[in-house]
This record gives sequence, structure tokens and C-alpha cells, in this order.
Amino acid sequence: MGKVALIERLTADLVLRNPSTVAGIGDDCAVVGNTVVNTQTLVEGVDFDMMYTPLKHLGYKAVAVALSNVAAMNATPRQALVSVAVSNRYSVEALDELYAGLRLCCERYGVDLVGGETGTSRAGMVLTVTALGEVDPARITYRHGAQLHDLLCVSGDLGSAYAGLLVLEREKVTYQADPNFQPDLAGYDYVLERFLKPEPRLDIVKTLREHDVVPTAMIDVSKGLADAVLHICRASRCGCEVYEEHLPIDYQTSRVCSEMSKNMLPVSCALNGGEDYELLFSINQKDYDKVKDLAEVHIIGHITEEGMPAVMVTPQNTTITLRAQAFQGADE
Amino acid sequence: MGKVALIERLTADLVLRNPSTVAGIGDDCAVVGNTVVNTQTLVEGVDFDMMYTPLKHLGYKAVAVALSNVAAMNATPRQALVSVAVSNRYSVEALDELYAGLRLCCERYGVDLVGGETGTSRAGMVLTVTALGEVDPARITYRHGAQLHDLLCVSGDLGSAYAGLLVLEREKVTYQADPNFQPDLAGYDYVLERFLKPEPRLDIVKTLREHDVVPTAMIDVSKGLADAVLHICRASRCGCEVYEEHLPIDYQTSRVCSEMSKNMLPVSCALNGGEDYELLFSINQKDYDKVKDLAEVHIIGHITEEGMPAVMVTPQNTTITLRAQAFQGADE
Repeated sequence: MGKVALIERLTADLVLRNPSTVAGIGDDCAVVGNTVVNTQTLVEGVDFDMMYTPLKHLGYKAVAVALSNVAAMNATPRQALVSVAVSNRYSVEALDELYAGLRLCCERYGVDLVGGETGTSRAGMVLTVTALGEVDPARITYRHGAQLHDLLCVSGDLGSAYAGLLVLEREKVTYQADPNFQPDLAGYDYVLERFLKPEPRLDIVKTLREHDVVPTAMIDVSKGLADAVLHICRASRCGCEVYEEHLPIDYQTSRVCSEMSKNMLPVSCALNGGEDYELLFSINQKDYDKVKDLAEVHIIGHITEEGMPAVMVTPQNTTITLRAQAFQGADE
Repeated sequence: MGKVALIERLTADLVLRNPSTVAGIGDDCAVVGNTVVNTQTLVEGVDFDMMYTPLKHLGYKAVAVALSNVAAMNATPRQALVSVAVSNRYSVEALDELYAGLRLCCERYGVDLVGGETGTSRAGMVLTVTALGEVDPARITYRHGAQLHDLLCVSGDLGSAYAGLLVLEREKVTYQADPNFQPDLAGYDYVLERFLKPEPRLDIVKTLREHDVVPTAMIDVSKGLADAVLHICRASRCGCEVYEEHLPIDYQTSRVCSEMSKNMLPVSCALNGGEDYELLFSINQKDYDKVKDLAEVHIIGHITEEGMPAVMVTPQNTTITLRAQAFQGADE
């Protein structure tokens, strides 16, 4: 069962009783009064591999991931709480490094670290970050607001974090075969940084505010573009067309793909790669002029009517229906 | 290094920048505006043993533990977010059970479940619950407000959750030696329920409000009375005297101890057992008349001046200095 169907099963018929609860499960954050809040857990061996993840980067990334969800609500992050469970193979000095990263990301984005628990795990590390943000109710963005003919936009570029992961996995395999092997990561700096130390796109939230644009719907791209698009379409009860030639893909991403295999297409990394932490959002066409020249914002498609699928249109003008693992078994 | 010294090292020199941040690390919850928030993680094999933990109880307990921290701030819980990481040996039906427990505890305490992530773990289950509560700023209680001569009170009884754990561990060992063994848990119902399905003492928060009492300091007793007392004394810069004969201990707790070993004293379970989730609080002496006849509230001692240790006075009038694992290496 895919994640979407599972969560819907587990949380079916939930009733929200408190007046302060504005929005519950089903978006990047819950909304409580003017506060948005989300919790993200990273598990060693699943979400990160200690073999190539410096602890300081890991701490930074754990906070960044939670702040990215705050950004996706068009909100400003203010506080973070951290809960770390570690096995006894981690030294105090290792925790110092981890916290240095957690604190650096908080500091960079003006976030107060207000909770910090450490506990014991049986094996490996489990990191949970809860982030709180402040939002103007008039500017809050959910996944469910996209309207017919809205333009679909994405920030930054797509697939580069996954390209970084591919490089790290390749070096790991080589190293395991020959421990004297010295990894040469020169020329991959951009994709590696994208994977190891992502930045929440709070700059985009700020730019949109400065240009007086409120997206009609928004989500962060954490599990590939296809997953993000499908979430918006499902929540907004609409279809969409995305144009392959408009997908922003960095040249390093393309280079890594061509090195890996003939069959590894950069567009596949963009659609299914994950961990980019860019923002996908829809805007009303009246805002086109305000958005078209914004740095780091790309218009990649538009919303179609309810009942239509979410598709990608290739340069050859064929359409490919978008699919994502999370939606397996869900009524797309 | 003990937990207190470790957290203080990791979070040294943290600066709080946002006006909405009222209180950061160092209490049962952080305080953001009129909202209190805390995150609690339970790890399989460390915080719970699947061999004797029904999943529905586990879900209930995970929420109860987070709500207990909200109660300790004298606040009313309103929202909870859950993050579950499970290995693939858990079926969808197992998650149904877990969520049934999570939802039951939320419902019982009028809490809206507003976040529910499921992810993958490499081994076992990791459960994180974030709870948010609402508090009247005039009634908020921290660990740091206890004053000289204040009376120290505790709710319910102490050591019974640990007694329940001892019974479960004993049955587990017997079962492992002989899988045909049928555990007989009759007569242990109270201590087992205390361990498997604790209740946050929100009834005490309500009672105190109805009787117009605001504790000067409060904490929940999650790692034994000694740990809780030391936290209040450290935060409030004071000492205290606790009277052994006033510690509330259930007869089932005493019975379990006598069954286990001649050297297992009920008072040790109360001081160091943990998982009781009762409330420890200090009140001004002027509130004595309001508190003395409250059901489930026991006056167990009083606050002494700064520089004095936290001690327990025995019926033989000897004093024992209180110690707790978390404070190892910290300047008590």
C-alpha cells in the first residue's frame, strides 16, 4: 500500500474539536491559530548513510527539511525542537558536531532552538525535528487551492540532490571494494551540496511576498516532482500538464546521469529523485507578469480540469501520465 | 556524562531571537506565545518491548507521555502530531492497532490529531509525538519558581509503573525459558495498567484551577521522584527535604517488591523507578488549606534554601541525599 492510501486509512474520520485547530493532517504543516507546525524524522540507514554523511551536515539537513515544510505553507519559521536518539557508539564529540549543524541551520534562518532531547536508540541514530512558523492567515498556502488554468511553477532546479546521492553511492561501492581508494569528488560540488546540505527555499517565500504574489497552492518537492504534482492535483481536485522542456535541470545533474548509465535520464531524476526541497506552487494567471522574470522561479506547466490526469508533455508532444510510489493503491 | 550535563553542553550559549519565544530548552515544554510544545520519542527495544506491549497501549502511551509534559506546564493540551517509523515486519493491521491507541488517547483528552507521518525504519519502531497545549500566562508553571518554605506535593502514587515493568520482565524470562508457560497476571492489574497505559494528570491541572491554586514550580515524574526533585531544585536554586513516610506507595507496588527480592524496597521504586507520569509541584504555604484535602494530592516535603542538598528524611530521622542518573557529572 502506498503512503497516501495508508495515511488516509489510519486517519480516516478524524474529528477536529478545538477552535484553535485551523488545519490538520494532509498538508506540509498543521495550522494552529497563526502557527504552522510539522515534525520530520530521519532514520540512520534509511534516510541517511553515516558512511558519507558528515554529522554537521546531517544536523543542518534535519532542520532544513522541517523548515522546508514551513516554507511550503508560505510561512516564516520561528522555533525548532530537536529529539535525538543515539546508540552508545556515538561519542559526546559526535553529538557536538551534530548540534553544531542543527544550530547553524537554526541561526541561518533566524529560528530559535527551543527543545533539545537526547535519548538512547538500540542501533543507529534517529533524528526528529519539529518546526514552528508564523503565517499571515491571508497569505497561507495549502495544497488544495489550485484552480483551473493556474500556472505551475517550481523554484531552483530538480534532480540534483538525487544526482549527488548517486555519486556518493558510486564512491561508497568503490571504497568498499578497495579501502585504499581515495574518492575524487571534484567537479561534483553542486550536486553533493544539494544532497548533503539542502537549503529550505525561504528566499522564495520572501520574494513572493515582496512581489505581492500569493500562490494558490504550494508544496515542497521532497520526493520528486511527480509526487509533489500528484499531491497538489489530488488535494485541489484537478489535473495538470507539465512541459518536460521547461523542467529546470542543472548541467551537473545531466553529466552525472550520462556517467551512470545510458538509460538514466535527467528527467527521471527530476520526476522521481527526491530530496530537492524546492517549492512547487501554482499561481493565478493574473500574476504571470510578476513571476515571469523572478530569478530561480520556473513556470513549468498549468492546471487542467478535474478528472484530467497529471501528465508530462515531451518535446515530441507525447504525454506521459505521472506516477509516484506514495500513490500506489490510492485513487489517483 | 549524565543527560543534564550533556544537554547543557550541547545547548550552551543558545540565543533566543524571536519575540514569540517565551521559553526555550530546560523545561517540560517550550513556550511560544500562549502555546506550550514538546516532542517525545519512544524507541523499540529501549523505551518499550514489543514482547509485552500491545500496540494499542503503545499508541495510547506515546500520546499520554507528551500530554504529561503539557500538564506539567499547567496547560491544556489541544493538538498532537505523530511520526511513526516502522520496519516492514509491521503489517497495516498492526499500524491500525497503533493508531487506534493514538486516537483513543487524543479523544479522551480532547486533543486534535493534526499530523501523522509514517516512514521506514531499519529495525523496530520509533514513535515520536509532538504535543501542543494552551496556557494562561498567569497560570503557567516552570521548574524554576520554587521558593524557600514552599510545600512539595506529588499526585497519585509512585513506583507502581516500575513495579508493573518488573512483573512483565519476570513473566518474559519465564516464558523464554518455557514457551508453553501461560503468564498469570491476576492481582497485578493496577501496576500493569500503570506501566502499559499511563494517564497524564490533566485532572490535577483542572483540580488546581478549580481550587485557585497556581503551583510555584511543576514537573512531571517520568524518571523517578529523585530525578524530578533534583530538576526542580536545580532550576529553582534551592534544596528540599522529602519525608519517606509521606511518599504515596500503592500496596501492589509493595507486594511486587517483596516478591522480587528482600533488597528491593518500595521506596527505591518510588525514587528511581520512572514512568509514573505523576505531577510533582511546589506551592506557597498560604495555599496549604486549599491543597491539604485534595484527593490524589500528597504533601511530601518542603523547599529549603539555596546551597542545601535535596534529601529524603527517613522515619528514623536520618537523611539520604537524593541522586539520579541524569545528573551524573552535573553540578548538583
